[in-house]
Amino acid sequence: MKYEKKMKKKSAVTMKEVAAEAGVSLGTVSKVMNRIPVGEPYRRKVEDAAKKLGYKINPVARALRTNKSGIIALVLPSIRNPFFSALANEITCILMDRGYQAQLMITNFDPDGEQKCIRAVQENKADGVIALSYRPDLIVDESIPFVTIDRFAGGHVPCVASDNYGGGQMAAEKLLSLGCRKLLFLRIGSTVSGEPDKRAAGFESICRANQIPYDMVYLHDGEPEKLFDEYLNDHFKDGVFGYDGIFCNTDYLAIRAVDHLRFLGVKVPEDVQIIGFDGITDYISGKYVCSTIVQPVREIAATAVRLLLGEGPAEKQALVILPVSYASGGTTKE
Amino acid sequence: MKYEKKMKKKSAVTMKEVAAEAGVSLGTVSKVMNRIPVGEPYRRKVEDAAKKLGYKINPVARALRTNKSGIIALVLPSIRNPFFSALANEITCILMDRGYQAQLMITNFDPDGEQKCIRAVQENKADGVIALSYRPDLIVDESIPFVTIDRFAGGHVPCVASDNYGGGQMAAEKLLSLGCRKLLFLRIGSTVSGEPDKRAAGFESICRANQIPYDMVYLHDGEPEKLFDEYLNDHFKDGVFGYDGIFCNTDYLAIRAVDHLRFLGVKVPEDVQIIGFDGITDYISGKYVCSTIVQPVREIAATAVRLLLGEGPAEKQALVILPVSYASGGTTKE
Repeated sequence: MKYEKKMKKKSAVTMKEVAAEAGVSLGTVSKVMNRIPVGEPYRRKVEDAAKKLGYKINPVARALRTNKSGIIALVLPSIRNPFFSALANEITCILMDRGYQAQLMITNFDPDGEQKCIRAVQENKADGVIALSYRPDLIVDESIPFVTIDRFAGGHVPCVASDNYGGGQMAAEKLLSLGCRKLLFLRIGSTVSGEPDKRAAGFESICRANQIPYDMVYLHDGEPEKLFDEYLNDHFKDGVFGYDGIFCNTDYLAIRAVDHLRFLGVKVPEDVQIIGFDGITDYISGKYVCSTIVQPVREIAATAVRLLLGEGPAEKQALVILPVSYASGGTTKE
Repeated sequence: MKYEKKMKKKSAVTMKEVAAEAGVSLGTVSKVMNRIPVGEPYRRKVEDAAKKLGYKINPVARALRTNKSGIIALVLPSIRNPFFSALANEITCILMDRGYQAQLMITNFDPDGEQKCIRAVQENKADGVIALSYRPDLIVDESIPFVTIDRFAGGHVPCVASDNYGGGQMAAEKLLSLGCRKLLFLRIGSTVSGEPDKRAAGFESICRANQIPYDMVYLHDGEPEKLFDEYLNDHFKDGVFGYDGIFCNTDYLAIRAVDHLRFLGVKVPEDVQIIGFDGITDYISGKYVCSTIVQPVREIAATAVRLLLGEGPAEKQALVILPVSYASGGTTKE
């Protein structure tokens, strides 16, 4: 009886049967199963036929044969920030839809953690890495497809980012169009250079072009959050705040500024209008937490995956900048 | 010259060298590398030695040899909900720290999506699955270690959950101790049975024991969110709301109730006190979004991983219930 137990209940479906069902050649089925690019309609046909017949690949055998694991590593500083969790959610869903596995790696904002993740990825022979990196000197084996978000490392590593410069311009233009006449840019934290630096540059360009007074403040030493509150205190005199428009580098900071100014007795948006950056929405209400420059999360995710898989015309571009939009969230007059 | 190119720059470190460095037997090194349980001090010694010498395993060869991939699938309905993203963050970090890879799978609350994920996991031969499942009839191959969160499927699948019953009791006791004399329980949405159902049961047990008037409302047909608002409207007459204490099944609902009652002109917490469940904190301020029964996210994550890896005394338990706590978040008098 023993050998009967080992017999398969149903004989396994073969690639040949899948090819017949899909009406394509055996070679096409093999390509799809081994994730070698074929035309989109062929891929769909083969996938549908494989699903219908219940064809199962042996991933370990495939990994040995093709040297491809089907695993894409997704390296993020955290997924507790709503912007990061939305990004991870989108990228994971897109990868799953394409038959890949998303291996989530979290660095807890530790640059050494980042390099450790990359080493682990290389040892595990992932097919590629999408990283929101805080470490510009990351060492990555060139043989592994690698796409960064927000941190353009140069040459052979493509990067996807929002139009940070354009977003900074948009914020300044919006504040000016809403009547602001003395502007402030506020940023704290990480001094690692990256695409988000361009927010300040874009903002400043519009202030200069319009010849209106403005200050650019970047707090990164000691306890930046304390310095941030102190800066607001220092510019509040005789019941009046020294600026009527503020652009903060993130929504997180914008909400901090709103709360602190209201605590001081300043009316937002009546006396001071504030715009953040990211487009974070409140989980409960779904509304923007402040007036903001919205990053196109879904498009960033889709573009990162396309770049990684070497698809489409964007493949040859090293830095892909995606358009942002303005959304009012109650901290500006509109 | 060609053969030189193929030569390795440094000869690869062997398991034997790792054993010598760690001061353990070759067998112990092999066990650690193949993720066969050994004593914690031995595991650390081997891992430290391997790190120091730069020993690299071949994961594909190991997967073939041991039939273990080192991949743990993490199946969640979404990671946009702050409770889910905190859970995914914790589980991923714990798995990474233990040398495993977290494969994130998102079902978008689709029960069919869940079964699809499990099938994909089986095909990819993950070493185990941790799932926050909304599908009680999930079919899982018994050969794959499987742990659920919040949905106890019975027998061979262990489950980790918060003390939902105790949390419900805690909410009722808190509202009573704060002076409430007519209580309401509110829930909407999924009718899938699971551990969270016990929140209502625990709440009701305290109301009964104290012989105070209460209503249990569960809205799940049609448009539950609309019905929810209508229920609040219907019980607001002549400027007075018909209850002075509400326990909502989630923080999401609690905030909806707070917003809607305030919109009607009801004072929260002066006239009506409201408690939610989950312990969601605001990303910006870090404060609880409402008074709430806090789920122990970190402990749930750690317990799920321990159960999956078959460690500790909890291993034999089929359902592990972890203690919750009460936190005031401004929607109760304290």
